[in-house]
Amino acid sequence: MQYGVAYYPEHKSDGELDHDMELLTASGINTVRMGEFAWCRMEPEEGKYDFEWLEESVERLGKAGIRSIICTPTACPPAWLVHRHPEMLYVDNRGKKRPFGGRRFYCYNNPVYREYSAKITEEIAKRFGKSPYVSGFQIDNEPAQEASGRCHCPVCRKKFSRWMENKFKTIREYNRRSGNIFWGQDYEDFDQIKPPVNTIEVSAWQDMPVYFENPTLRLEFERFSSRSQIEYQNIQADILHRYTDYPVTTNGTGLATNSIDYYESTKNLDCYGFDYYPGLRDAAVDSFPYAFARGVKAGKPFWVMEFMSGGGHRFGGSGRVQPNPGALKQAVIQSFAHGADMMLHFQFRTFPFGAEQLNYAIVDMDGVPRRRYYEMQDTAKLLTQLAPVERAEFSNQAAVCVDYDSHWALRIKPVNDPDFQYLDYAGRMYRILAERGYNSDVISYDADFSKYKLLVLPAAFITSGAFQMKLRRYVENGGILLATFLTSVKNKDNVGYTETLPAGLTDVFGVSVEEVEPIFAGNQNQVHLTLKDTETDSGDGMWCDLLGGTAEALGTYTSDYKKGAMIVSKNSFGKGKACYLGTDLGERAMGELLAGLCREAGMAPSPVRAEKNVEVVHRVLDGHDYYYIFNFTAGDTVVKTEVPVYDYLKGCVYENDIPMERNGFVLVKRWRQR
Amino acid sequence: MQYGVAYYPEHKSDGELDHDMELLTASGINTVRMGEFAWCRMEPEEGKYDFEWLEESVERLGKAGIRSIICTPTACPPAWLVHRHPEMLYVDNRGKKRPFGGRRFYCYNNPVYREYSAKITEEIAKRFGKSPYVSGFQIDNEPAQEASGRCHCPVCRKKFSRWMENKFKTIREYNRRSGNIFWGQDYEDFDQIKPPVNTIEVSAWQDMPVYFENPTLRLEFERFSSRSQIEYQNIQADILHRYTDYPVTTNGTGLATNSIDYYESTKNLDCYGFDYYPGLRDAAVDSFPYAFARGVKAGKPFWVMEFMSGGGHRFGGSGRVQPNPGALKQAVIQSFAHGADMMLHFQFRTFPFGAEQLNYAIVDMDGVPRRRYYEMQDTAKLLTQLAPVERAEFSNQAAVCVDYDSHWALRIKPVNDPDFQYLDYAGRMYRILAERGYNSDVISYDADFSKYKLLVLPAAFITSGAFQMKLRRYVENGGILLATFLTSVKNKDNVGYTETLPAGLTDVFGVSVEEVEPIFAGNQNQVHLTLKDTETDSGDGMWCDLLGGTAEALGTYTSDYKKGAMIVSKNSFGKGKACYLGTDLGERAMGELLAGLCREAGMAPSPVRAEKNVEVVHRVLDGHDYYYIFNFTAGDTVVKTEVPVYDYLKGCVYENDIPMERNGFVLVKRWRQR
Amino acid sequence: MQYGVAYYPEHKSDGELDHDMELLTASGINTVRMGEFAWCRMEPEEGKYDFEWLEESVERLGKAGIRSIICTPTACPPAWLVHRHPEMLYVDNRGKKRPFGGRRFYCYNNPVYREYSAKITEEIAKRFGKSPYVSGFQIDNEPAQEASGRCHCPVCRKKFSRWMENKFKTIREYNRRSGNIFWGQDYEDFDQIKPPVNTIEVSAWQDMPVYFENPTLRLEFERFSSRSQIEYQNIQADILHRYTDYPVTTNGTGLATNSIDYYESTKNLDCYGFDYYPGLRDAAVDSFPYAFARGVKAGKPFWVMEFMSGGGHRFGGSGRVQPNPGALKQAVIQSFAHGADMMLHFQFRTFPFGAEQLNYAIVDMDGVPRRRYYEMQDTAKLLTQLAPVERAEFSNQAAVCVDYDSHWALRIKPVNDPDFQYLDYAGRMYRILAERGYNSDVISYDADFSKYKLLVLPAAFITSGAFQMKLRRYVENGGILLATFLTSVKNKDNVGYTETLPAGLTDVFGVSVEEVEPIFAGNQNQVHLTLKDTETDSGDGMWCDLLGGTAEALGTYTSDYKKGAMIVSKNSFGKGKACYLGTDLGERAMGELLAGLCREAGMAPSPVRAEKNVEVVHRVLDGHDYYYIFNFTAGDTVVKTEVPVYDYLKGCVYENDIPMERNGFVLVKRWRQR
Repeated sequence: MQYGVAYYPEHKSDGELDHDMELLTASGINTVRMGEFAWCRMEPEEGKYDFEWLEESVERLGKAGIRSIICTPTACPPAWLVHRHPEMLYVDNRGKKRPFGGRRFYCYNNPVYREYSAKITEEIAKRFGKSPYVSGFQIDNEPAQEASGRCHCPVCRKKFSRWMENKFKTIREYNRRSGNIFWGQDYEDFDQIKPPVNTIEVSAWQDMPVYFENPTLRLEFERFSSRSQIEYQNIQADILHRYTDYPVTTNGTGLATNSIDYYESTKNLDCYGFDYYPGLRDAAVDSFPYAFARGVKAGKPFWVMEFMSGGGHRFGGSGRVQPNPGALKQAVIQSFAHGADMMLHFQFRTFPFGAEQLNYAIVDMDGVPRRRYYEMQDTAKLLTQLAPVERAEFSNQAAVCVDYDSHWALRIKPVNDPDFQYLDYAGRMYRILAERGYNSDVISYDADFSKYKLLVLPAAFITSGAFQMKLRRYVENGGILLATFLTSVKNKDNVGYTETLPAGLTDVFGVSVEEVEPIFAGNQNQVHLTLKDTETDSGDGMWCDLLGGTAEALGTYTSDYKKGAMIVSKNSFGKGKACYLGTDLGERAMGELLAGLCREAGMAPSPVRAEKNVEVVHRVLDGHDYYYIFNFTAGDTVVKTEVPVYDYLKGCVYENDIPMERNGFVLVKRWRQR
Repeated sequence: MQYGVAYYPEHKSDGELDHDMELLTASGINTVRMGEFAWCRMEPEEGKYDFEWLEESVERLGKAGIRSIICTPTACPPAWLVHRHPEMLYVDNRGKKRPFGGRRFYCYNNPVYREYSAKITEEIAKRFGKSPYVSGFQIDNEPAQEASGRCHCPVCRKKFSRWMENKFKTIREYNRRSGNIFWGQDYEDFDQIKPPVNTIEVSAWQDMPVYFENPTLRLEFERFSSRSQIEYQNIQADILHRYTDYPVTTNGTGLATNSIDYYESTKNLDCYGFDYYPGLRDAAVDSFPYAFARGVKAGKPFWVMEFMSGGGHRFGGSGRVQPNPGALKQAVIQSFAHGADMMLHFQFRTFPFGAEQLNYAIVDMDGVPRRRYYEMQDTAKLLTQLAPVERAEFSNQAAVCVDYDSHWALRIKPVNDPDFQYLDYAGRMYRILAERGYNSDVISYDADFSKYKLLVLPAAFITSGAFQMKLRRYVENGGILLATFLTSVKNKDNVGYTETLPAGLTDVFGVSVEEVEPIFAGNQNQVHLTLKDTETDSGDGMWCDLLGGTAEALGTYTSDYKKGAMIVSKNSFGKGKACYLGTDLGERAMGELLAGLCREAGMAPSPVRAEKNVEVVHRVLDGHDYYYIFNFTAGDTVVKTEVPVYDYLKGCVYENDIPMERNGFVLVKRWRQR
Repeated sequence: MQYGVAYYPEHKSDGELDHDMELLTASGINTVRMGEFAWCRMEPEEGKYDFEWLEESVERLGKAGIRSIICTPTACPPAWLVHRHPEMLYVDNRGKKRPFGGRRFYCYNNPVYREYSAKITEEIAKRFGKSPYVSGFQIDNEPAQEASGRCHCPVCRKKFSRWMENKFKTIREYNRRSGNIFWGQDYEDFDQIKPPVNTIEVSAWQDMPVYFENPTLRLEFERFSSRSQIEYQNIQADILHRYTDYPVTTNGTGLATNSIDYYESTKNLDCYGFDYYPGLRDAAVDSFPYAFARGVKAGKPFWVMEFMSGGGHRFGGSGRVQPNPGALKQAVIQSFAHGADMMLHFQFRTFPFGAEQLNYAIVDMDGVPRRRYYEMQDTAKLLTQLAPVERAEFSNQAAVCVDYDSHWALRIKPVNDPDFQYLDYAGRMYRILAERGYNSDVISYDADFSKYKLLVLPAAFITSGAFQMKLRRYVENGGILLATFLTSVKNKDNVGYTETLPAGLTDVFGVSVEEVEPIFAGNQNQVHLTLKDTETDSGDGMWCDLLGGTAEALGTYTSDYKKGAMIVSKNSFGKGKACYLGTDLGERAMGELLAGLCREAGMAPSPVRAEKNVEVVHRVLDGHDYYYIFNFTAGDTVVKTEVPVYDYLKGCVYENDIPMERNGFVLVKRWRQR
């Protein structure tokens, strides 16, 4: 694995640079990322380039066996450019220009800015594209972060009108499909259309609640903005690809920002890269982002471009707690276990100045190596030991499906805000499967479903006819499908279906949705779940789709006026089964339901027993089963195994019990007597 | 009663329209409201009108015995109008124009918009004013809703200067009466006066707390804005009245928005109409809005133009819970019991598109009739059975007085925010009276007081000399008056009285206010109440007016340094009694006090026993007493009666116990042996 | 002591004025403050002055023995001035002009406004500078209050560029020292620099979190804005000083607003004046603001220009509770005990009109004297009796050091927001010392340290090399220094030190900071404190600086992975001791630590026993010890004394027990048998 840190040679005096280079080369890492905010040093005056400082560091590191990821610096346009072209500034949803002085204050659609961005990218590509000391390129920094994903400037406005015209052709057609007649909003022509007043970015202040807007218009603006940013990124990607064979990517903000469709955005990139800052003090690191990352480019290895490095002061308000001893190492190995091909800590040494001054890093401001440095050193060593198993494969038989249209639509019109969040809910399904011993993939609606025995489909709010057909075929051909409440409610125009719900799928599931409501604390009721071997009671949660129809009732209400009503169903359809979960269930009931379906699908749980805060990741290499085990409990623990396993690093065999230290990890191989 | 739904034929394809018409005509309802947001269909291009689609639906329904309420569409000006006259847009208190894309984005004072509004209204009036299938007209939609009641555009600014000049004549007089010398704010002329920076609309974001403003100016701006909206409404009302004899009204937002004085606004309307969305799941429906509605036009029947229809998705954030089975029916009958002459569910069928897409309705998006539809059908039938008692009268002997000046003044300068809300407090008095068996009216300061034995006057913060005199006469002539803390503190200029409080009334009450303070959790003390037959202890609440004077002390403090101080008083004055309640009391003590005063006034409580969550509404028809009983408890219950009563619908007699189902209602008649 | 009220003769009719004058002269007070918002009466038209009304009141009061503080009225420019010069309006951090209609809506840097301010000040100075009835002058009102301390208008912008140029000379130097390379923000010239988008004023709405800004730029803007306001104030101070020998000051908002450096701002003023509105109902009045005030001008008496007068209605939202009987008197004596030379209640009589209408005062709106008036009368009498001890001195041997750079820097980049507030934390140290019997001074970094045996230095986040040297000398010469976490982290450019922390002081303390993190509820651990005679356990809090080094460990962690790590240290250095407190401690442990250090420094606690809610203030007159004792407990109490004391007012002697009433106070003198 490529393992290392972000580093900023442009911040350093010569003496500091020497000191840091010594520490870097002694640390055992093999990768350093540089250059992302240094435009004003790369091009101090328009057209006058200076890359010597960067070339020198690249070479110095390279000669010590450390290769560099080179970033384009476009997240921070220099003062001279902003001064000459203030029209390139980002305009937020209140009509305010972002001022120079932060970052990400540019409009991605502005043609002038696109031209300047192309020029600096080309210079970088030329100089570093063939360097033997380089191993890849990062475009820009955290696109759409800091609520910069929904520009409302005049350029965007005009372009959005054209986008709408291009899609709907006639204004009559747009008026019809979007239901503009509601609140009497038929437009006369596309030029009258403006980007909606608000964005759904969390950190942007909202003038008017987003649900006041036409949902069709709103969803198109999400798509348009996502697409525009991808266009901007691809200008750089295309240039870089012309000059280099090294991988080119960017560092998305993963599940945090969500204003770019990563399935789309990575098509022209060589891998999916993202930043991840999980808590490492007495906390299980959520591996859902890794599973999502692995699914973005259909199983290709992904890059973690920025990752936690410690605690202390923090960019942004109060400080951040330190990782437990061992937690940093554990987290890096966990990402490796989940298929990461790169993992870079942010960052090597604490900044004394600038907006992120004092912020935690691997080495403190004074340059003295302390426990986090030494833990990084250990980790680097360990990764070398693990190199032989790096090419092990995943063989998951269950998948959780996610989609940006459904995600955006549920943000535009929430159903149980803030408790129900689409991606969190998908993550919950993923986690409960894992705790029951079933690793799963996280895949897009466009993925190949045929290799999965169980497909979990949380809140597929928006479906196309083609997707409905894809689900139908999946079940017909023998798959087990579990869909939840809020399935197939709207079409791709973000307009509700006027057929009975789940639209286009009532025969597949054998159910019709008879009545819906959100479930809050005040209207919770009891559900009884009857599975093959178990009976479980649970409260309902989040939402309720009361079900009619001919399917078998796995779950029914047992209290209040809903008593007797079906809420979880199973239907045989073709060679498969289609289940509908009309509400959210408690942890135990959800576990029983998911595990029951896995067993029904003929899947076996991991013989090394996963549970809450004990994660087990299954990989297969040359026909052998490997299990990474991570102890996220707050102390030492013992993990049970049903088969004898061999400790890959320690060389011993465990018959039943695998002892684990706090924040420890073990890699075991299934032991086969030959 | 006119009973039905809102419906939007302009949203529908021909097939959908046929389907809906069938359901509508089969449902038993007799009224449908249409047209409120359809300007862009009524006048797709300036001056080109198209009403065929609406006429067709009106006729189709009319022939099936369902009459239509026709709305003017002015809440949603069409795109062509906004495009040609952007100066008509509403300007909020931050100086921002409301954009096209929501609703209510117009300025009610803008002369251009007034002209266009008049024209479309006249077209509607001409076409539908004499139609035999129509039964009334609604002007616009929810005036002042969505913080649209305080426009700050240049037209409003100039007009406000003239309003001030007209009222105060000379700037010297305005400076004097408003105390502009405070913070040195004497104006040189009226043109320097601007509308205050903020509104007190809850949903508008506030730049500067409202209490930073001159309170005289602020109150005048409230009055000016209210008056301007009434002017705008009356342009339409006058046109409609010229063409039709059917009732003309609008749908206010009742006690929710409060930026229009409904006593004023309904003078030129034929009845008071309002929208009401109470919770119907395990909740008592508050009847205070109905009592208020009945009082707006001095006892005239009122219209509920929009009412709950169900749960599920919701316009605005999270969804909404479904009504209990029976709750919809119960709520409709309750409104009937309280004097509603119209009750329209919002709305018939769920919108698939637009800002309110998926929002609950009587029939779901798929057009399949389910439990809410059948309950509406039952309700329609039931209303037919109740028709003979529709003309029964109210004969309440107690009244609660409310006033917009006091309400606005207490919002401008709150005393115990957010706990003390003027209208909520009036509602509390109303409710406790009802729970003790005394129905009361809710009336304006201009109402005829002479027919009431007991007058409750909550927080009459602003009084005129004339109103003080009216209260004085009421008591002199034998009435019992209960005023509360914060009585007669300010004059009509929103300026404090410099006489001892309650200003102008110290002799009537026999008290003087000696010291005041808010009561929070941290400074609560104990009060002892001594009435004729009962002794009660209670905590104090909200506010405290410590009383001096010669009145009889009904209540005194028993703890801390306030020990012994009078806080509830009674004074004989003329033939009547004037009581002053210096603080808020707990439920029991307040009930004892109010019931005691009712008894002292010679009033008898309902023989059918009301209590918490059991509402009893008394009506009188041809000399017979009728009691509507509503069970809002969360289960079945038994209601006690002191006299035998006859069940109007079931035909049986109850001697002592009236059994009631959850969400049930009973109409009984007092049984008289002849 | 000068004791009295604020009064507004310009609000009054002749009859009201006569009434009030009678009450004022009968009350026993000796001082009245007038004129602060009356510009529009003093200069009703440009250049036409009218001071007769004010002169008349000054004379009338003067002849009755009451002297006047005259205010300049510049907080409220008149309508005619704003109308003619709208460019003088304040521009907030969103680019919005403050409108006329509130107060403090001017820009302190605007040259036109400075000119007009100078003219009105000169007129006042001429007329009142020599009056025998005057005793001092107040400039403006509450500078920087209501978020008016960070103007962003074009004048400020230009001036700020010049400020930066003046300080850093070349843009290259500024880029270097501020680390503008971070996020690639090197400027080309000083004209490109704008004031940061946000202020750190609490009541101003923030566009972008403050920590997004360059911290060097941000701190300079704090200094620039503070300095600009001082400049503005000094224009007036200089004019007044030219015409009068009476003291000239202004009324700051003390520790509440903090956007002006009071150490700087009072250099050209004759004393420090501030406004203070503590709660007086069952509450201890915090004396930290008094100790701070005494330290502003190195021990000079201070003025309390506005002080609580009661409860009831309130300027700003909900009302305010009344003081306990006696609490007003107690609070005035407390301020006297702490060295106040003036104490003026705000205000004499409740305003009927304007933004502060109904707001509490000594006398209610109706002009009837009630308990607060009589309590003021008593207090005035009492102060006369205490006059002989007024010149007693303070002889505190401990001091708490505070500084604006550290304060601002911790607001710009908070560490544990909102729990950790710099000034509150200093106040906590002060309070715990007092409860252990040690009065302390609160002093600036520029104060003379040599007279203190113990110096407490909370979170000296920013230090200069010179200040580091000053601390070093203090300890070398025998002082005991207690510094806390976050000491010497940054230099005066608000840039982090790259030496090991506490930078420049590791040898003095014998420690190095090894690891830092915030302490929240979730990562708290246990600390054990070993002092000479006591062992104490405590949780940690706020922040953690884990310590390495050779110092003696007074405190070590006892739990989790920090177990055994040093967190409180003591080091002998020269003749003194330097202690480092790496975390916050609980009340008891902090008390033990502070008391232990006091004892080690050879200090003795007060023989009259202070404790929580019993404050003891020690003064020395002619070699005699005086102790003011204040009972802030919620009832009567008994205070212990270790030596016989003599009650100064009652004339009795207490051997062991001093009985005290609720809200009582006693002045005792140490009894010496001769």
